[in-house]
Amino acid sequence: MTRIKVGVLGATGAVGQRFVQLLADHPWFEIVSLAASANSAGRRYDDVVRWVVGGDIPRQTREIVVELADPAALAGCCSLLFSALPSEEARRLEPEFAAAGFAVFSNASAYRMAEDVPLLIPEVNPEHAALVRIQQARRGWPGFIVTNPNCSSTHLTGVLKPLHDAFGLDKVLVVTMQAASGAGYPGVPFLDLLDNVIPFIPGEEEKLESEPLKMLGQFTGEKVLPADFRISAHANRVPVRDGHTEAVSIAFQRHPSVEEVVTALREFRGLPQVLNLPSAPHQPVVVLEEEDRPQPARDRLRGHGMANVVGRVRPCPLFDIKLVLLGHNTLRGAAGGSLLNAELMACQGYFDGLSADLPLLEGNCL
Amino acid sequence: MTRIKVGVLGATGAVGQRFVQLLADHPWFEIVSLAASANSAGRRYDDVVRWVVGGDIPRQTREIVVELADPAALAGCCSLLFSALPSEEARRLEPEFAAAGFAVFSNASAYRMAEDVPLLIPEVNPEHAALVRIQQARRGWPGFIVTNPNCSSTHLTGVLKPLHDAFGLDKVLVVTMQAASGAGYPGVPFLDLLDNVIPFIPGEEEKLESEPLKMLGQFTGEKVLPADFRISAHANRVPVRDGHTEAVSIAFQRHPSVEEVVTALREFRGLPQVLNLPSAPHQPVVVLEEEDRPQPARDRLRGHGMANVVGRVRPCPLFDIKLVLLGHNTLRGAAGGSLLNAELMACQGYFDGLSADLPLLEGNCL
Amino acid sequence: MTRIKVGVLGATGAVGQRFVQLLADHPWFEIVSLAASANSAGRRYDDVVRWVVGGDIPRQTREIVVELADPAALAGCCSLLFSALPSEEARRLEPEFAAAGFAVFSNASAYRMAEDVPLLIPEVNPEHAALVRIQQARRGWPGFIVTNPNCSSTHLTGVLKPLHDAFGLDKVLVVTMQAASGAGYPGVPFLDLLDNVIPFIPGEEEKLESEPLKMLGQFTGEKVLPADFRISAHANRVPVRDGHTEAVSIAFQRHPSVEEVVTALREFRGLPQVLNLPSAPHQPVVVLEEEDRPQPARDRLRGHGMANVVGRVRPCPLFDIKLVLLGHNTLRGAAGGSLLNAELMACQGYFDGLSADLPLLEGNCL
Amino acid sequence: MTRIKVGVLGATGAVGQRFVQLLADHPWFEIVSLAASANSAGRRYDDVVRWVVGGDIPRQTREIVVELADPAALAGCCSLLFSALPSEEARRLEPEFAAAGFAVFSNASAYRMAEDVPLLIPEVNPEHAALVRIQQARRGWPGFIVTNPNCSSTHLTGVLKPLHDAFGLDKVLVVTMQAASGAGYPGVPFLDLLDNVIPFIPGEEEKLESEPLKMLGQFTGEKVLPADFRISAHANRVPVRDGHTEAVSIAFQRHPSVEEVVTALREFRGLPQVLNLPSAPHQPVVVLEEEDRPQPARDRLRGHGMANVVGRVRPCPLFDIKLVLLGHNTLRGAAGGSLLNAELMACQGYFDGLSADLPLLEGNCL
Repeated sequence: MTRIKVGVLGATGAVGQRFVQLLADHPWFEIVSLAASANSAGRRYDDVVRWVVGGDIPRQTREIVVELADPAALAGCCSLLFSALPSEEARRLEPEFAAAGFAVFSNASAYRMAEDVPLLIPEVNPEHAALVRIQQARRGWPGFIVTNPNCSSTHLTGVLKPLHDAFGLDKVLVVTMQAASGAGYPGVPFLDLLDNVIPFIPGEEEKLESEPLKMLGQFTGEKVLPADFRISAHANRVPVRDGHTEAVSIAFQRHPSVEEVVTALREFRGLPQVLNLPSAPHQPVVVLEEEDRPQPARDRLRGHGMANVVGRVRPCPLFDIKLVLLGHNTLRGAAGGSLLNAELMACQGYFDGLSADLPLLEGNCL
Repeated sequence: MTRIKVGVLGATGAVGQRFVQLLADHPWFEIVSLAASANSAGRRYDDVVRWVVGGDIPRQTREIVVELADPAALAGCCSLLFSALPSEEARRLEPEFAAAGFAVFSNASAYRMAEDVPLLIPEVNPEHAALVRIQQARRGWPGFIVTNPNCSSTHLTGVLKPLHDAFGLDKVLVVTMQAASGAGYPGVPFLDLLDNVIPFIPGEEEKLESEPLKMLGQFTGEKVLPADFRISAHANRVPVRDGHTEAVSIAFQRHPSVEEVVTALREFRGLPQVLNLPSAPHQPVVVLEEEDRPQPARDRLRGHGMANVVGRVRPCPLFDIKLVLLGHNTLRGAAGGSLLNAELMACQGYFDGLSADLPLLEGNCL
Repeated sequence: MTRIKVGVLGATGAVGQRFVQLLADHPWFEIVSLAASANSAGRRYDDVVRWVVGGDIPRQTREIVVELADPAALAGCCSLLFSALPSEEARRLEPEFAAAGFAVFSNASAYRMAEDVPLLIPEVNPEHAALVRIQQARRGWPGFIVTNPNCSSTHLTGVLKPLHDAFGLDKVLVVTMQAASGAGYPGVPFLDLLDNVIPFIPGEEEKLESEPLKMLGQFTGEKVLPADFRISAHANRVPVRDGHTEAVSIAFQRHPSVEEVVTALREFRGLPQVLNLPSAPHQPVVVLEEEDRPQPARDRLRGHGMANVVGRVRPCPLFDIKLVLLGHNTLRGAAGGSLLNAELMACQGYFDGLSADLPLLEGNCL
Repeated sequence: MTRIKVGVLGATGAVGQRFVQLLADHPWFEIVSLAASANSAGRRYDDVVRWVVGGDIPRQTREIVVELADPAALAGCCSLLFSALPSEEARRLEPEFAAAGFAVFSNASAYRMAEDVPLLIPEVNPEHAALVRIQQARRGWPGFIVTNPNCSSTHLTGVLKPLHDAFGLDKVLVVTMQAASGAGYPGVPFLDLLDNVIPFIPGEEEKLESEPLKMLGQFTGEKVLPADFRISAHANRVPVRDGHTEAVSIAFQRHPSVEEVVTALREFRGLPQVLNLPSAPHQPVVVLEEEDRPQPARDRLRGHGMANVVGRVRPCPLFDIKLVLLGHNTLRGAAGGSLLNAELMACQGYFDGLSADLPLLEGNCL
């Protein structure tokens, strides 16, 4: 099988590096272009990147000459782009790429809440992918933009999904303890985070209180009606490298027992599991039994960093249920999530009209 | 003025060391006895202690020969004891000391919830001190036991007190991010906490959900009727040396604005402030303006580690108010709290009947 | 091929867990017995172990019932034992196991410097393995004891070997910055190591100043004559999970250039590389070009944690050469090193007389 | 006594903040001017500074309007300036300030090795202060520049001084383990230093190998002849907030015993101790007995952060003596060192010709 040619926008940053790492040996996608700002353009990737995501720079990308993140510069290179652009640049450039015919899978926050842009987690709301048809029609774009949520929202929503389906969410109170890598690189100074907790992350609580409602909302065929429950979030930065931990209390419309909640989480399988997508974890939500788990240092790599891990499911004196959840913020919560979105939409045929060079996918998608 | 002679039980542990440190130059109290287990008894304090609380062992205690923590061994040495005993030993020994005529100020959890034992924070429930008269009458003890709460409960209750008085608490949801020193020494292994969050601390959530209700309860003259609101707690251990951070959402009976809450916290003064007790902070609750504070590394020593520090007071989408609070767990939350209890009760004359050698206190107490 | 049955002594500790982890899918060895102290004996491995080495307990060992670390209890189970016993227990028990016919590969320090016990690194001194014949003859043991060096000595000696061969060592000054895992579990308390350096590790400097001399010494056929150069060591503990960093200054008999040193390190291959032993890294010493490497967080897993990594080779104003080296202390420096010893000696036929059930090894060893 | 008016150049950076903190209640000096780059000029200090050095911004400096770091802007404000400028700006601006009549006490590296600029530690080479007369004559400046050394050089030289005097240094090999605050703020990213050692700090080894030779050199009345011994340095960054630890091996011309070295260090007193300067520690070198000290977390604040702390003095198998030393890099090693230089030179009358408003100093200086 010929692989689909892809590019990475913002390839030198921390999330861009994760894209490069995850795409290195991908069965369906092949990196042909790395794009970044004018500072880096024109130089070899291994000369401009400060590699911070572990292991080595993949051999096949070391010598790629970085291009300017601009539709003209990338014209014809590929039809699929992963975007790790900073929010302001994403706001400006992603529509230009979509207008130029690219399918843009963006980790940026700029268009997440736009009415005609899917905010997508394949296990949660795969049907929202169809929003891109509305988007293309409304904006006259041959390409499109698909976003994945904020990292903390990703993990929270991934766990809430089977519970909302089974028991109806009413109220969710979440307190996050987020890893330093969520702030990118260089990100948080060592002097600010050693021996410390920073009880504030700009914009994070707003995202946590809104993005899950869009994702758990109903797609009418025209637009998404947000889900009808309420979230309150406290966001904290803690001295951890990778892995966001979230303490969650949940009130339901129907009032499940602890056992019912555990069962609903354990038995949950989404479309990526059915389709056996390359980056899909076997089990989207792993529930641990130990009384002191999940822990980021011990559990963040479960399901190759693509599983959400839950523990300490127990009654809440105020709501129905308390639990702790953990997700790997730069894998499932960023580049890995975006990649899974592209796999889903490749499988569903969304790229077929984009370019003549698209190969047929084999396996479950056929 | 002659100082009151005191002893420390469990003097070699981390909390015991804090007692020794805080009592080193105390204007009212003077250490005459350090007691510990049979392993340490009979040897010089500086030979048996592994000093972990910063600075040096106070000069005047270095050469004290450690005694066995036993009423017979301590007979006549003093009338006032600070107890940093482990819970099981506290359960066995503290009644023996009270029966032998000692006033025991205990940091242990063993008797905190006993009906006739004060669980005391001088700014919160100074009137509960009178429970010791019930205790003495019921048990036939010439001495008595007074406890201070769990560290996390101390900070939470210290902040809830003025809010409960002003607006009536209804529901409190608290998620703690607790420092390693809360587990004592050696406590948590480095390998367990580096780059990690441990979302469980044995017994902590139960204490947080019950102790504040006793402290904010009403003393009838006979017993304490627990306060009538509900608490749900999630307890987490984070890689911090000192200082417990707590993310709190609160629902009130009356529904105050953010400004009203800030004003109530800022204007709060308790009896220790009125009496100007030696260990009392000028302001029991400090409210910060900065959007990313309080932080343990930057704010734990405010009020010499005896203030509770609050920040980010803001509306909660589910309850009325969200805020972050911070307290120094081994100062205000342990040894410092117990010491302040003893200062209050010294000032109120509770030691007068205990021993002929008690001096008259000067200053505000007179 | 039938695999060789092996047991692990001290299987519940941190090094014992590494043995279990590394042996889980080993092509030549198969765990049939896990032994520990009386506290754990008689219970399932997953009930008694506190797993601290990352990932999960290997499936095939979860349900093994732990046995008492005693020759009688293990009689007949296997002929090969890996020992992660504490030093004092190793001193007492390992001779008993050797006398009972077991080949004991020990990570303990007890017998490292014994005249008739090999202190073995397969890339460094494979010919010292023959010391076990002297040992068996002298002590009348059907089995034998083989030791691997202290972790810091392992990494240092692995780097010194090709340099000694090529240029003749004269003086070596080494300052270590050692990871917390070197102290086992629970090991160093979090409160002792957060935001700190501890400039002392009991016994470490003595080992660093003597073990390399034995390993780089000449085996006469009867005994080992220690190498004739001098080492001075400073040992420090730093807040790192895994990976010992060592700053080394070296004076040589011949005075090589930086380039000659780099070439000697890069081109070095040992017997494990020739034999292609299962745990052997492709390259025993990896030399990095970047000016700020090696770093434990980035480089400790090179060669699956079995390579020693060198950087910053440069002239020393006092000696000839300065460099920085890094090794993974619980992989190459402990369990992995011991396992490689067993692979070497299996390949060389040292187990053939031990037990009738030993299979023939295939591959390069034939 | 009227205090001497002073200004701080580079007042918003980490070292600038330390100057502001140390000068807040200084008995001799009074801050009248805070200067920084054009970004900050014209705004209140507490609006532009991100305070990172602990505690609060001193009350008396909060409202000072920051001025541009330019001789014209500061003309007439004061005659004494402390410079925390970045190296490149120091190179450009400090001569302009000296030419304009200011006495500049600089923490920057730009002019440390200039032949006519004192590189000064008051306990080590107070007589070098007279170099400013050569400097003024040669350059025609009414003012002058005095520098203090790199932080690691400061601590090393402060310990070497009494040993050089007593036993004659021959060779010094030093391996540093340096705190994150040495890189300023924001400095090292959290993701780079968590669970890590970085075995390289740009320019640091060169400074360590040259600055001590200048400071321990002989001032002929015309120039400084560098000391005649050799230093080899390895510099490492470790995950510590404050406090540089250095492992040192020393060869002497005369070969002292461990006891003689300890005695020489303990009995050492410099001119700041004789003059009883306000920032001078009682004892410039503190020697600890405990086998695992000094440690940055426990010992960095000895002598209010102005003492160098030594431990583990023992024989070195290669040289004569090994020891560990520790100094507080932003107090003694930066702002505190510069301040002590100014105190010394104030006491010695070096400011008398600079300005009519200089008060007479009282106390030991008279």
